[in-house]
Order: sequence, then C-alpha cells, then structure tokens
Amino acid sequence: VPELLQPRRTTFVEPLMLCRRLGVELVLASETLQYTGSFKYRAARQVAATVPNDHVITASSGNFGQAIAFACQQAGKRCTVVMPATSSQVKIDNVRGYGATVDLVDTTQKQREERVAELAASEPGAYVASAYDDPLVIQGNSSLGREIAEWGRRFDIVVCPVGGAGLASGLLSGFRKLGYETRLIGAEPLMANDAARTLRSGQIEINEFEPQTLADGARTRSIGKHNWAVLQGSIDSIVEVPEERIREAVRLLFLEANLKSEPTGALSVAALLTQPEIFSGKSVLCVISGGNVEPALYASLIV
Amino acid sequence: VPELLQPRRTTFVEPLMLCRRLGVELVLASETLQYTGSFKYRAARQVAATVPNDHVITASSGNFGQAIAFACQQAGKRCTVVMPATSSQVKIDNVRGYGATVDLVDTTQKQREERVAELAASEPGAYVASAYDDPLVIQGNSSLGREIAEWGRRFDIVVCPVGGAGLASGLLSGFRKLGYETRLIGAEPLMANDAARTLRSGQIEINEFEPQTLADGARTRSIGKHNWAVLQGSIDSIVEVPEERIREAVRLLFLEANLKSEPTGALSVAALLTQPEIFSGKSVLCVISGGNVEPALYASLIV
Repeated sequence: VPELLQPRRTTFVEPLMLCRRLGVELVLASETLQYTGSFKYRAARQVAATVPNDHVITASSGNFGQAIAFACQQAGKRCTVVMPATSSQVKIDNVRGYGATVDLVDTTQKQREERVAELAASEPGAYVASAYDDPLVIQGNSSLGREIAEWGRRFDIVVCPVGGAGLASGLLSGFRKLGYETRLIGAEPLMANDAARTLRSGQIEINEFEPQTLADGARTRSIGKHNWAVLQGSIDSIVEVPEERIREAVRLLFLEANLKSEPTGALSVAALLTQPEIFSGKSVLCVISGGNVEPALYASLIV
Repeated sequence: VPELLQPRRTTFVEPLMLCRRLGVELVLASETLQYTGSFKYRAARQVAATVPNDHVITASSGNFGQAIAFACQQAGKRCTVVMPATSSQVKIDNVRGYGATVDLVDTTQKQREERVAELAASEPGAYVASAYDDPLVIQGNSSLGREIAEWGRRFDIVVCPVGGAGLASGLLSGFRKLGYETRLIGAEPLMANDAARTLRSGQIEINEFEPQTLADGARTRSIGKHNWAVLQGSIDSIVEVPEERIREAVRLLFLEANLKSEPTGALSVAALLTQPEIFSGKSVLCVISGGNVEPALYASLIV
C-alpha cells in the first residue's frame, strides 16, 4: 500500500472577540482545513491504510464519503459510496472527484444499509466501512485527541459534536493514551438527542427516523456500539442544542472568528450558547469538526 | 509599554481540490485567522509598540483601524480612527470594541486626510499612523515574509494583494532578510491599477478618485513612497484583476478550500484565474490577506 497523506494537524484558533462575548477562555480546534474538509479524513485514512481488502463500500451522504474516497484513491483501492438519490450535486461531484463510484439509492424505496448489504453480498471481497462504529475509526480519530493533548494547554472542558460518536470516542481514546485529564462534553442537536438519551438510560437508544436537523452530520439514528464502549462512564455529559442555536453559532463563527463552519461543526459553540452556565469563566476547547456546507444554505445562515 | 501579543503565525493551507482545478502546486498563507482578522495586526503592533507617543491617530475604514485599535488597547495608548460616516455599523462597532474613539467624517464635505490633519494639529503629541507608508509598517509586515521563507519550501512565485503596497513591501523585506529567492507578483484590481501603472512608468501614479472596487482594501489612491522604494526593481510584475475574477476567487476559496476570505484577500487567487499562463505548472504561494467582510456582501458572492 502506498504511503497515504498524514492528516493535517488541526488548526488552533484563539478568537478574542468570541472569548469576550461568551465570557469563556475559548480555543477552537478547527478541522475545516483538514483534507476533504472535515475530521473524517483521520478515520478514513486509518481504514483505507489498514484493511487488506482492495475494495471499500460505505454508506454516506456527507463527509465520510469524501474522506474514504480520497483515502482509497491514494491507496489505489476501489471505493463505492452509497448516497441518497436526493443528495446535492456538489456532494456527489466531490465524491466522484476523488475517484469513487457513487451508487445512488432511492431512500423512499430502500434503506441505505439495505443497499450496502446487497453490494457487499455481490462483492464478498469488499470491506464495508462504518463512518463511526469501527475500532479503526476510533483509532484514526484519536490522533485529534493526541494533538489537543500535546498542544500544551490544560482545558477545563473539551466540547465536540456528537452524531455516531466516532469523534467523541476518538478524542477520549487519544486523551487516555497520553493520560490527558479534561472533561469531555458532547454537543448534540436536541431533535436528534439519542446520545443524550443513551447517557440517561445507560443503553444505546435509537431514533425511529433520521432526524432532519440542520446539523446533517448528526442525523445518525444512534451512536455505535464500539463508540458507546469508550464513552460509557467517561463522557461528562451531553448538551442538547436547539436548531436556532446552531444557526447562531455558524453566524458567530463567521462574524467573530472568520471561520467557515458547517452546521454540524458549529454544534460545540452552539452548546456554549445553549448552556452558558456550564462554561462561564472556564477554559474551553471547542472542536469545529468540518466546514463542508452548500453555499445557498450557508448564505441563509449568516445573513 | 506592556508586552503586546505576538502576531499569530500565518495559517498554511494546501487546498488539494483547488490545486487540481487550477493546475498549480498551490499553498495558501491565510491571514484570516490573524488577530483582528487580517495581516494588518503585524504592522499595527509594530507601530503601537515602537512609537513613544501615547496617542495614535489614523484614517481607516477597514482592517488597519481595527488592528491599530487592538494594538493600542494592549499598549495602554489612546487611539482615534477617522472613518467615513458611511462606514458599516459592524466596522464602527469593531473599532469601538477594541477601545478606540471613532471620528466619523462626512467624506462628501471633507477628505479623511484633511480631518486627520485637523486632529493632529489639535493634538500635537499624537502619532499619525499610515496604514502602509511607514517603515514601521514594512518592518511589521516583514514577519509574514519571514514565516513564508522559514516554512521550508521554495516557491516559484509568491502572490499578494496590492493596495498601498504595505504587504508587498513587507514580504520583500522579510524575504531579503533571510536571502529567500522567489518571484513576487502583486494582484491589484484592474479598476484600481495605480500600482501597475506605477510599475510601467517608473514613478508613483495616483488615482484621481478612490476606485470603488469590490476589494475595499485596495481602494487606495496610490502606493506609498516607502513601499515604492522597496518594490522598485524587486517586484516581478502586477496582475490587473477584473472584478468578476475577484467574485469567482471568493467563491472558489469558500467551496474548495473552506476558507472565508474578504474580496481583497482573494485577489491573489483571482490573479491566478486572470492570467493562468503565468502560473501553470508552477509552485505558487498565495497570501490571503484578510477575512473581514459583511455577511450580506459575502452571501451575494458565494451563491
């Protein structure tokens, strides 16, 4: 396997105006400038570089699709990404731009997982990659935890978006490896609060439908089993964020940090807006997980 | 004088999609995450930290105003920024947010320079700071040249926006200190092409009016004398950029590099779009000089 590009080191930003406004000693760790525009490249690279299979199949309408396509392209592996037929042309073009085959599925007729199972059955040599529920994903994402730990500052709290919890479990795993002590708080859309419910009940809770939150990276129906095994007893809490706070956070990052964030990426800052009493006066690191967002949607969020 | 915050190191970005599209080995040096959102903090810090005066007066409707206000706030100095009465409320609020006094002038009745002269006469102890035509500005901006030289890569061409030429002269000055060999090409709006005309005639050419280019950081009527002294015989050439290419560059940076750039900041990438034959197949570093832009204007540029 050829050497794959190492993940770009995360971009640490100290947005002074935003610190003053929020009354928090705030640092951002932005993955918006990561290869393919989100932290997902960390996990995708790990999967593509590790599995022996020369074909990778995944279901993704978003960032993981681009990331695994790019990682497979470098590794000289075939890659098939199952996407909803309703996906935007930009997203389809991006995945194809990285050399993957896009398999469009009419999700009103067939679940994406079902289509992946069909493809896997017809291609028994392929690796079916999950965007989060895989030890390789956790291992790949742990590099971000390591970078934060090694940056040389102790944070009272680290906040990250939660969808399938690949990022949260990766961060915890990276912190553990380095013995880095901090409180990890997840930020999840209120209308997709399966992880918060999971934390309350102590067992994985599942949304009946994919919740149509603005934070499209958090539309997963539940967190993964491997992720839950890492999170249980270790994650501090989860803030449930109303949609309006997500909008506000995207706009604040634009105005006061010059950062283009996608709605999912802004969840962590949105958590600070939602429950300021948790964070007030503390030193806080917010992970901005990605920056890929349609121009028309973004324009509507900032104006 | 208290210790002022050192400028943030520039953010180097390798936008793979943009490289492929432009057929250029492209690296961006983004100053959008610099304190106050543009490279101007480098010069403003140098001025505020060096001059003995405890009051600084300047005329600026844009980035230098914010930068000098923030630098003076840290230095415990008074700061007065003369701004056109038509300036957007966001810009006025930002300058005030950094503790400066904003002096609004009706530019249909009085030139900004005239108002600065009035203020200077009534406050003989104040330092009148130019945003570009000052050896301290060149010295401050040279730190960006040093960072590029020290990054450890040789570029065939470095491209930067040109308004008053404080940035271009600072880069050249930084390169010289380290003996760093590269071609510096300026990027200037076609409708504000005084620097290009200056290069052709060999003497400083002056625009009759402030040209109303989208790149508001390049609306200067001429480059500065100190800047010209550094540029003459050293700058390679200047690309004159049509307005449409500036729009296109802002959008490309948004879409394919996840970078929020202001129109002036996108001039260097716009130069690649304007005269691709100069850059094709070369290794090129583009300086993205700043990211401060009104939300409504930005929204209209990306959609």
